[in-house]
Parts: sequence; structure tokens; C-alpha cells
Amino acid sequence: MNIRYKNCRILTSDLKVLDDAELITVNDKIFYSGSADKAVEIAGGMTFDREIDCNNDLLMPGLKNAHTHSAMTFSRSLADEYCLDDWLHKAIFPREAKLIPEHVYWFAKLAYAEYLAGGITACFDMYFHREANAKAAVETGFRHVFCGAANDFGGFDTLETYYNDLNSFDPLVSFILGFHAEYTTCEDNLKFMSELAHKYEAPVFTHISETAAEVEGCKERYGVTPAVLFDRLGIFDYGGGGFHCVWFTDEDRKIFKDKGLYSVFNACSNLKLASGITSVHKFISEGMKIAIGTDGAGSNNALDMFREMYLDTVLSNVETNNAAAVDPAVILKAATSGGASCMGLDDCVSLDAGMKADFIRIDMHHPASLPENNIVKNLVYSGNPGLVKMTVIDGKILYENGEYTTLDIEEIRKVTKEMVKDLAI
Amino acid sequence: MNIRYKNCRILTSDLKVLDDAELITVNDKIFYSGSADKAVEIAGGMTFDREIDCNNDLLMPGLKNAHTHSAMTFSRSLADEYCLDDWLHKAIFPREAKLIPEHVYWFAKLAYAEYLAGGITACFDMYFHREANAKAAVETGFRHVFCGAANDFGGFDTLETYYNDLNSFDPLVSFILGFHAEYTTCEDNLKFMSELAHKYEAPVFTHISETAAEVEGCKERYGVTPAVLFDRLGIFDYGGGGFHCVWFTDEDRKIFKDKGLYSVFNACSNLKLASGITSVHKFISEGMKIAIGTDGAGSNNALDMFREMYLDTVLSNVETNNAAAVDPAVILKAATSGGASCMGLDDCVSLDAGMKADFIRIDMHHPASLPENNIVKNLVYSGNPGLVKMTVIDGKILYENGEYTTLDIEEIRKVTKEMVKDLAI
Repeated sequence: MNIRYKNCRILTSDLKVLDDAELITVNDKIFYSGSADKAVEIAGGMTFDREIDCNNDLLMPGLKNAHTHSAMTFSRSLADEYCLDDWLHKAIFPREAKLIPEHVYWFAKLAYAEYLAGGITACFDMYFHREANAKAAVETGFRHVFCGAANDFGGFDTLETYYNDLNSFDPLVSFILGFHAEYTTCEDNLKFMSELAHKYEAPVFTHISETAAEVEGCKERYGVTPAVLFDRLGIFDYGGGGFHCVWFTDEDRKIFKDKGLYSVFNACSNLKLASGITSVHKFISEGMKIAIGTDGAGSNNALDMFREMYLDTVLSNVETNNAAAVDPAVILKAATSGGASCMGLDDCVSLDAGMKADFIRIDMHHPASLPENNIVKNLVYSGNPGLVKMTVIDGKILYENGEYTTLDIEEIRKVTKEMVKDLAI
Repeated sequence: MNIRYKNCRILTSDLKVLDDAELITVNDKIFYSGSADKAVEIAGGMTFDREIDCNNDLLMPGLKNAHTHSAMTFSRSLADEYCLDDWLHKAIFPREAKLIPEHVYWFAKLAYAEYLAGGITACFDMYFHREANAKAAVETGFRHVFCGAANDFGGFDTLETYYNDLNSFDPLVSFILGFHAEYTTCEDNLKFMSELAHKYEAPVFTHISETAAEVEGCKERYGVTPAVLFDRLGIFDYGGGGFHCVWFTDEDRKIFKDKGLYSVFNACSNLKLASGITSVHKFISEGMKIAIGTDGAGSNNALDMFREMYLDTVLSNVETNNAAAVDPAVILKAATSGGASCMGLDDCVSLDAGMKADFIRIDMHHPASLPENNIVKNLVYSGNPGLVKMTVIDGKILYENGEYTTLDIEEIRKVTKEMVKDLAI
């Protein structure tokens, strides 16, 4: 499948906008991206399944949702009155106990629909019933990176099996080691986690320092913060990182910086669950590796990376009394190439030739894109899912002008409507 | 012009969702909204210019943008590095000095395009070159409420003329008394403002307590906060209210509460300019009148009421350590009926028969609307402009499935692109 995207602009890896450009995909990869002049030469010897006039719109790398629980779409706008601890125990865990693989299959598809409509081309997902979810991902054509979610209630016994099986299941699917969090995982299991990381020389991810209470609990149990504990146990010896990172100390950030670990921000979820506000500016000024995620639909409640980018840019302003506390360009990188690298998708970081063809078309004729005083700032400060005209993953157009090519949104709507009833408590 | 909207759901004034509904407009008004069964009887004797199958989508009152500077779209993503004071003096005022009526006409049209695409059916706008702006509003069919913006640099001499002229210009246009802010207005002019309010027995609006520095400056000059000062001068004797209200004291809120004044929140702008975070939960628990606005595109940078609603709901959670600090239903009311009442649009508060036909169609088949665990919460927590399928003002469909009926977005794009160059400093 060869597709030629004509009359476009391209967001380069250093966040410059290349005018008068073309992009050519061959099967799952970007074959050419650059000036239209040179594209004419290259295209001369090729045949195309489709040639698309992009109306001078912007093609840019897809947004990477670096922390989510996709199938938790079932819990959107349920139990919004709880803080994290009560929310988990009173609203979420009792429903999750009823979840069967078929639920996860359909609610993950609902999440994919929202991802595609919002310009998200990959997710880093921590959930269960993974076989069903992987099936949904492959059928949709969505790039899904699973993260281990083991805790004392289960998952450590199957972690290695998933690691091996899901990393050889399909090119769209991969698996990274991970566990739920310190507060749900005893020391023996944490040590087992470290052994596995060493055995496979593999990165490990986990929820970390999401709430003040979590950090206090860890200190009571071990005398140190979660980041210090995990580091001492050798869990991060081959990289990885943490989700949320709201209550990181200077020492926590130093550990993450020194080990090259990723801090994944989840601003909306942290606001909504009253967990706190991350000091994003500190992570950036210290040159740390960062990425951005939506968290699940139950605690956000949107799977909208534009809203995340906006908040990760502006929320530090009040704390620092500085309207330029965070550079929006750094946040746009975190949401694209940062997320890709965090998730092990090193072939999805840019629109350079040879990379996977995972990209989106941004409507540059939408009023929120105008005037073009600064396109990068427009994307971060005034972008919204309504600007996404097309989403392409692995060279396949999965979403175009509001329509899905692999998902039947009506069927998803009807099936999930019934399934919500199954999960009532 | 009679239009019949079939197969829809309707958001009622008490935020219930009426299923199996229809809505019928006759010219500029809602003629019927209610059960489909009864609609069939009523429609039997009528002829329609158009009958629309709404596919079971939700019709709801349009969002009311209760504080904005529409034509400031010229400044989107310009000078994002400044806090309020520098932003005004270094970036905005020098460019505004170059603004001519034609600029305002076109940049207001760009704002209208964004309003319509984001489900906004009326704006409360503080800016200048009002004749040009009023022309743009009437040509677009947009409901535009002007607010006086007088300060020591000008505007008090023409305030009364505008009040009389623009309130008799066109049914879509009205004018409410107002001045810029305490820090730009001397005591003599404030007294003049009060006299005018008394002469016309009319409400007055102004920027108020937006930054801590503004409040401190006022205290140095007068020994009291802006709200106390304006109250003492009698400016609020016939109602009105203030924009921002970030640094309100308990006493300020009491004055506003006792006088029935509107507090208009602008969460995004206040975050972006590092002005602060409003304690929205206090206003609500004290039963105050509230409304919501985007502020201008230079300081937000989107004209997106969904993002505002989200932030007005969740930002108080962290301050209060309570995930239910603010009821999203109250915020949705503030963004619809609250805004309408604030702006003097008492015939735009709901979709009841007899009201102006100002409403929007929300895509209930979009993944962000699913599942329907709670439709009101979905709108506030996961809504975005991409859900708006149709925007109707004064009975006319102005936006439908991404297309405008009265605006030529390509022409607006091209003209404003050139005009930005005129304004360079």
C-alpha cells in the first residue's frame, strides 16, 4: 500500500514547520518526507493506491499517550466524587472484579475510537485481560504497548509469560515490564520485579508518588520515598520510569535523571482526583526525560492529549508566578517523541524517512489554528481533538474526517451500553 | 423559517435529559420542545423549511462566553512569555494602537468561527471599534453583547452614546455599561461610571481582582479592595458584576452575593498569565451568581468553553483536597443559563418554548460521549469542541458538520494572515 500525501506541511523532529512538502508512505513506513519538488522526482517512478491533497494542512507525528488504562472507558463519569483511595476501593475495584475479557475487548475499542479521533497513535496501557485487548488492538490497527500491572493480588506469576508472548504476538503490540505501585506490592514481590528486570535487562514502569498519602505510607514502611526504594532494589537498573510523579522530591528527580528514567505526567487525572499538581518546570529545567499520558477515562475523564499538553504547560505558571514557566515546544516533544521513546517505540519518534508511518493531519483551516503566529504554540495552547482530520498508524488511514475505517462506532456504542449494565454494583 | 429537529434528546433547564424528543423553531424562537409524540400532533398543521433527523443526539442551550475580547484573535500565540502587566504593555497595547476598524471586523469574524465550532452562541465582549464589530456580528448572525471598556485613556466620553446606539442597532446586538478596571481608571471616572449607572438604572461590569498586584495597588490607593471601592461608589447599585474575581476576599464575595452580582470565571487565562486560581467552590457554596468566559485568544489561547468548564470544575479539587469540590452540573449551568442571565439574555436561558432558538447539537455517537453513565458529567469532564455538530442562533443554522453558513473561513484565513503583518511591532 503506497500513499502520497501532497500539498502538506510537515512538523520536523526539531519542531520546525516545513512548507510546500509531501509525504510518501510505503506499507507501514515513511518512504519520503520533504520538499514537494523532490517528491515529484521520487513519485515519478512509483504507483500509488491513493494520492491525497492535504490542502496545506500540517502532518505531524501522532500523539503518544504514555500512561492510560484504555478499557477503563467503562468508568467514565462514574463515581466522580471520590479521591484516589476511595475511588479505587468503592467504585473501581468492585466493578473490575466483574470484568471479563469481552468487556475489555469492547471498552478498549471505545478507547481506540477516542484516541484516533484525538490524534493519538499509540498508548502505553496498564490493564488486564490482555489477550482480549491485544485482539482489539490488532483488529483496529492500533499501536498498543502493554505495561505490566502486577501487584500482591496477582500478576507477578504471569509477568514473564506476558513479556515473552505479547512481545512476539504482532508488530502492533509490545509489552514492557511493570507493576501497579508500591502501596499494592510487598517487598518480596518488589524484589521479584527487580530480578525479572535483571534477567531480561529490561526497563520497568510503575505508578509512583501519585498522592502525598502514598509517599507517606512508603516512608512509614521503608523510611524512604518510592523512587529511592525502587532504585535501591535495583528495579530501575535497566531503565523505565514512573507514572504521575506528582510528589517527587529533589532526590527522586535526581535518581530519575541519573538513571535516564521517564517521568510521565497525568495532569488532568491528578487534578480531578485531588492528587496534586506536578511541578513540571522543575523536571524540564533539570533536563529530565518526560512523557505525557491521559490516565484512564474514569479519572480524567477524557482521553485527550491536547488538554494534557495545555495543562502541563500552564499549571506551573501559578506556582512559579511566571507566565513562561514551561516552554510549550518542550511539552509538544514530550507528547510525541518523548512518549515514543518512553514506550520503546524508537521507530515512531518523527516523520523522517524510515520511521513507522504513525502520523496525524491537523486542520490548519480551523479557526483555533489561526492566525499562524506560532504553529507549535497554537497546537499546545489552542489545539483540541476537533482539529484532527486524519490519523494514520502503520501506514494505514484509520480515521479520516470523522469516520473510522476499522472501527464500527455504532456497534461499539450499542455493545458497551449493554455492558455497562453488567458492571453495575 | 420553520425547522423541525426530529429524533433528538433535549437538555432541560434543570439539566435532565429528555429522551424521544423533538424541537421545532419558528423564525428566531423555539416554538416547541418536548416529547416526540406531542410534536407529531403539533407538526401536523405546520410546514417546514427543513426537517432534520438528529440521530438521537443531544440538543442543549448554546454555551455563553461571558467574558472575552473577540477581536484579540490577532494576538493568539503572540508573546506568551509575559505575565499580565508586561503582556499588556509590551505586547498588546503597542499592537492595539495600530488596530483599525477593518482589523476588528475580520478578527471578530475569526473569533465567531471558533465560537460557532465550539458551541458558543453568545459572547460578552469588551473591546473597541464597536461599529465594525457589530457589523461583523450581524453579518455572521452571532449574538454579541458589548461591554463598555472605558478607562482613563478613553471611552467614558462615548459610553452613553454606545449604550443608546448599540442597544437599538440590531436584535442580535446589545450593550451593557462597563469600564476596564480600577488600575486604569481614576476616581473621577469611577464616579462618572456610577452616575451613568444611576441615570440608566443599569448594571455595570469590569475586570476585578484579576491579579494580586491589582488588589494591592487598589488598597494602596484607596485602602480597600476593588469590590469594596466600587460598591461604596454606587457603581453596582443596579447590578452587574466582574470578570476574573481570582483574588476575591470573603468580604468581596459577600458584596457580590448581597447585591446579586455576577462573578465571571476565566480559568485558562488566569493560569496562563500566572494570575492565580479562583476558589470556585467558595462562590458555589455561598450560592453566588456565576458565569464563565474564555477571555481573549491572546491570553488563553483558545476560545473553548469546554476547557473552561473542565478547569472550573477540577481546579478547586487540589486546594480543597476534595475530588467533589465543585459539582459539574453547577458549572454547566453557569456556562449556559448563568452566562445568559449575566449578559442580559433572559430569553436565551433554556430550550423552553418561547425562548430564542440559540442551541447546539452534541454528537452522542462520538467516543468522548460514551458510555452514557452521566451525560452532564460527560459534557463537563470529557467534552471538547469536536463534539459540536451544529450551532443555531436566532433560529438560523450557522454551523453544521464543520461547515459555516454565513462565514467564509478561507477568506477570513487569508485576510487575517495579511492583517497580522500590519500589526507587527
